[in-house]
Order: sequence, then C-alpha cells, then structure tokens
Amino acid sequence: MKISEFQKLIEDIYFDKDSQRGLMRTFAWFVEEVGELAHELRSGEDAKKLQEEFADVLAWLSTLASLAGVDLEEAAGKYSKGCPKCHRTPCMCRENGD
Amino acid sequence: MKISEFQKLIEDIYFDKDSQRGLMRTFAWFVEEVGELAHELRSGEDAKKLQEEFADVLAWLSTLASLAGVDLEEAAGKYSKGCPKCHRTPCMCRENGD
Repeated sequence: MKISEFQKLIEDIYFDKDSQRGLMRTFAWFVEEVGELAHELRSGEDAKKLQEEFADVLAWLSTLASLAGVDLEEAAGKYSKGCPKCHRTPCMCRENGD
Repeated sequence: MKISEFQKLIEDIYFDKDSQRGLMRTFAWFVEEVGELAHELRSGEDAKKLQEEFADVLAWLSTLASLAGVDLEEAAGKYSKGCPKCHRTPCMCRENGD
C-alpha cells in the first residue's frame, strides 16, 4: 500500500470525527498512542499487540497530517535521496549516532 | 511510494547506526522528533518545516519498527477494512470522539 493510499484510507475512516475534535486534541490522542507503543516496546511480551501499536501510531500520524494539510507521501520524499543531511546511504553523519 | 519501500529506504540509510544505538535509545530520539512536530503544529508558522517534521516522525517510526522486527506495511493492514473496532467507513464508534 502506498503512503498516500494509507493516508486516504485513514481520512475516509476518521477525518470527519478528527476534524471535529481539532488538531491539538487529536495530537493528544496521537501522543497517547505513542505511550501505548512505548509500553509494548518496553515489555516485549506480545508481538501481535506491538504490531498493532505501530499501526495505531502510523494511523494517528496520518490523520494529524491530514488535519494539518500535509501530504505524508510528499513529506516522505525528504528521504528519497538518502540522509537529508549528508546525502549518503548509509548515513555518514557523525551526529545522531548516540 | 509504498510503506514497505519507505521502511526499506530508511533501513538502508539508518539501520546500522540505529541498531548500534539500540531500541529504547532510538525510541527516545523518536519522541524528540514528536516534540519537534508538536512545536511546528502549535506555532503554525512554517508549512515547509511542518512537512519536514512529519517526515522525520515517520522516518523514526519506521526505523523503530525495523529494530522491533515489525513490517510497517503489514501492520497498516489493520485499517484496510475500515475502523478495526466498528468495521465501518467512516468510523461509527461512539468512543474516541472527544
């Protein structure tokens, strides 16, 4: 599935509800999902639940992008030519390593 | 670009560095990017920077998924048949609305 198709899918399911809630309240929901992802990453007990939390964070990120008027696939193009800072694959930046 | 292609792209650029850093330290970087996204969403001053922050959060989410052994495109399939809770498009759940 393309990134743009996923964003459209999430819009079809949730955009009306999310737009009524508004951007910053939706951001709070997104962060709540990030917290649930943290829990599953830390516990490492349930692979299926972990996969679902990644899906949920991706879905809330997509809906946030839609509310903010951002095309997530266009945004992803930032990385299409390697690291945006050093322009290499693999990244050879000395920073970001720790 | 497919979700799987983006995940592979990010792996090619960052996986060696990210795997050396480890899962939980990489999670901390991810959360830092979420903070930068929050700043741009809140200020609403720079559309280009906002787009870049969405790209960065997506990239760090992808690399986290790679480190955790999760296929992000497979995970995204959770939403392929509408809301995973009410199985409708648009979502008709009464919860999650506020």
